[in-house]
Amino acid sequence: MSAGPRLVEVRKNVLKQNDVAARALRERFRDAGVLAVSLVSSPGSGKTAFLEKTLTLLYTRYRVAALVGDLATDNDAARLARSRALVKQIITGTVCHLEAAMVQNALEGWNLNDLDFLFIENVGNLVCPSSYDLGEDLRFVLLSVTEGEDKPLKYPTIFNSADVAVITKSDIAAAVEFDEAAVKRNIQAVRPGMEVFKVSAKTGEGMAEYLEFLQTRRQHFRAAAAVPK
Amino acid sequence: MSAGPRLVEVRKNVLKQNDVAARALRERFRDAGVLAVSLVSSPGSGKTAFLEKTLTLLYTRYRVAALVGDLATDNDAARLARSRALVKQIITGTVCHLEAAMVQNALEGWNLNDLDFLFIENVGNLVCPSSYDLGEDLRFVLLSVTEGEDKPLKYPTIFNSADVAVITKSDIAAAVEFDEAAVKRNIQAVRPGMEVFKVSAKTGEGMAEYLEFLQTRRQHFRAAAAVPK
Repeated sequence: MSAGPRLVEVRKNVLKQNDVAARALRERFRDAGVLAVSLVSSPGSGKTAFLEKTLTLLYTRYRVAALVGDLATDNDAARLARSRALVKQIITGTVCHLEAAMVQNALEGWNLNDLDFLFIENVGNLVCPSSYDLGEDLRFVLLSVTEGEDKPLKYPTIFNSADVAVITKSDIAAAVEFDEAAVKRNIQAVRPGMEVFKVSAKTGEGMAEYLEFLQTRRQHFRAAAAVPK
Repeated sequence: MSAGPRLVEVRKNVLKQNDVAARALRERFRDAGVLAVSLVSSPGSGKTAFLEKTLTLLYTRYRVAALVGDLATDNDAARLARSRALVKQIITGTVCHLEAAMVQNALEGWNLNDLDFLFIENVGNLVCPSSYDLGEDLRFVLLSVTEGEDKPLKYPTIFNSADVAVITKSDIAAAVEFDEAAVKRNIQAVRPGMEVFKVSAKTGEGMAEYLEFLQTRRQHFRAAAAVPK
């Protein structure tokens, strides 16, 4: 009974509409020269802590903003706002992922030309967000050292839809006997050549390399878009 | 563009079909006197470790079996089989949750009269499984001490659809500065009166209380069903 042909067909249409909206977003981001980065992970992988640290570190040199998706509560937006970046919460209700149209609506009232980086934190879910393009230039998949080394093998679709993997909570790696070699092997098995960062938002470990990557990526992005800015 | 009326309507039909299948399962479980318990959580909350410990501890006194859902791999079934319980893997492909029909199919070839407990481990997902009744008598929602204390507020639907909450990985609670009072307060805010256990599959902490609860629940279940067994 799992998703009969009619449901599949209707879902395909929804995805097609999403792709159209995502393409329009991608063009807007390019025109404005803003690098859009989305974050996906299971609930509790430390997306918000990681993003708060990112915003705080970038804030001194760049114009940064974030959209954050949750089924309920605006706790995350409140946390992220401590970084002093521009932040907006997207409440999805019962929808288990962000869609391009939700991003579009949330951006209303913001001038993209005033931004260097836009971060989009998806709902905590390692399955459904993989199908929805949000117009982002980069998609990061996060997994924490506490989650079990076989996550990439068990959730291959989300790893395939992402560009970069970030291993979070490295400060407690020893306490949970995290096997870094195994998780890296599993990431490469699913997505050969995938870039992997290992960070701790708490101690700051690994954040410098990751920020360096982000800034380089933004330079390439702007050079390719040739934005006169 | 999020899920137009037609998608909602079709989804309702799928859910209706699922409810019919779930009801049939529930009757089969009652007739056979087998207590069916499902587990939901985000990926990486320690469902499989918790279930392996449960099966191992129950195995000496009861006839136990488990179904385990994953998008890909049969890693979990292999892990659970170490407990010597009867185990079957359900591979869902791209489907982000188990459905009653998948459970029905997986049970083929098993005689429920030969079982005391049947555990059903859902796909790691804190959103979508909440809508799908699997015919279980008890639904446990797990959250680990590493996940952040506001999970119940951010994923209220899954907490509402569950009967019991289990806080896992208590052995690393101190290392991650877990705030037990806060998480319990948040659980009660979303689902007043919900029973909460705190366990470590690694050290065994809290497993005795939880197993006591399971066994008592099974006695009540069998008394209510009046199964001559």
